Amino acid sequence: MDISAFIRQVPDYPKPGILFYDITPLLASPEAFGGVIERMADAARPLRPTMIMAPEARGFLLAAPLALRLGIGLAPVRKPGKLPRAVFSVSYDLEYGSNALCLHKDALHKEDRVLIVDDVLATGGTIGAMLELVRQSGATVAGCCMLMELDALNGRRVLDGVPLSVLLHV
Amino acid sequence: MDISAFIRQVPDYPKPGILFYDITPLLASPEAFGGVIERMADAARPLRPTMIMAPEARGFLLAAPLALRLGIGLAPVRKPGKLPRAVFSVSYDLEYGSNALCLHKDALHKEDRVLIVDDVLATGGTIGAMLELVRQSGATVAGCCMLMELDALNGRRVLDGVPLSVLLHV
Repeated sequence: MDISAFIRQVPDYPKPGILFYDITPLLASPEAFGGVIERMADAARPLRPTMIMAPEARGFLLAAPLALRLGIGLAPVRKPGKLPRAVFSVSYDLEYGSNALCLHKDALHKEDRVLIVDDVLATGGTIGAMLELVRQSGATVAGCCMLMELDALNGRRVLDGVPLSVLLHV
Repeated sequence: MDISAFIRQVPDYPKPGILFYDITPLLASPEAFGGVIERMADAARPLRPTMIMAPEARGFLLAAPLALRLGIGLAPVRKPGKLPRAVFSVSYDLEYGSNALCLHKDALHKEDRVLIVDDVLATGGTIGAMLELVRQSGATVAGCCMLMELDALNGRRVLDGVPLSVLLHV
């Protein structure tokens, strides 16, 4: 399966000069979407994760079926004001703009091996914030599974040796 | 399985007087989460849906695995400024505050039978907006599958005969 056939490139979105990768054609095809989840599961199993962590909103679309495929739990990472109980919080820079991400303080346990999942690795701002949330939780990062990596932005530099699996390089 | 054991009630969130239903314990248990998806799939099959439609962000957590379980596509419904191509848009009132929701104009086809999926049916504002988005698309609503319904708010009055499946009434 050629995953790139299910990703639509939209120039100048959300700002001039940004090339946006639209995954909605992938979601519309159960064969392609299911194939992506199977490939992510195959990449994740050797990392022996015990929990998945993923940011809203697009990360949820991949992380929820992947967590069920692997038979492990899912800890959602959300923007401020969305998780109702005590949270860890990290601010970070996006490819365009800035943001903060939160994780329930009891979402991860110290013995957890956490798999970080998202659709696009761009500048690495989001993934860097998630690494910091895992650190605050006292758990261990098992690795990262991303659908796509924008190679030119070199976001993987923030990973500092954490295993990274990417299905599509652009 | 007693689903209510995996839903944590948080009083006065996000505002005083609102009782928030936190589904993160459900997501943390693959047995419970998987059981919920199986029950939703069992409820959905007789409705013969050809596409699932779900709103960000919590709706994605249920809709993505359900779409794969049923072998049908998923059309994400998002807040303004998140979908990169031409959209239908509907404004509506929430249980607390107001909002607008968007759907790519080419996400649904006229022959589609659409299953609307979300975590909580409260006042019915979100589901009413999604019914309107389906109408604008020219597709047919096959039914709605909700994890929970807050019965006292009578949000189901907006459904006007559309089949509704609810796993947990509170």
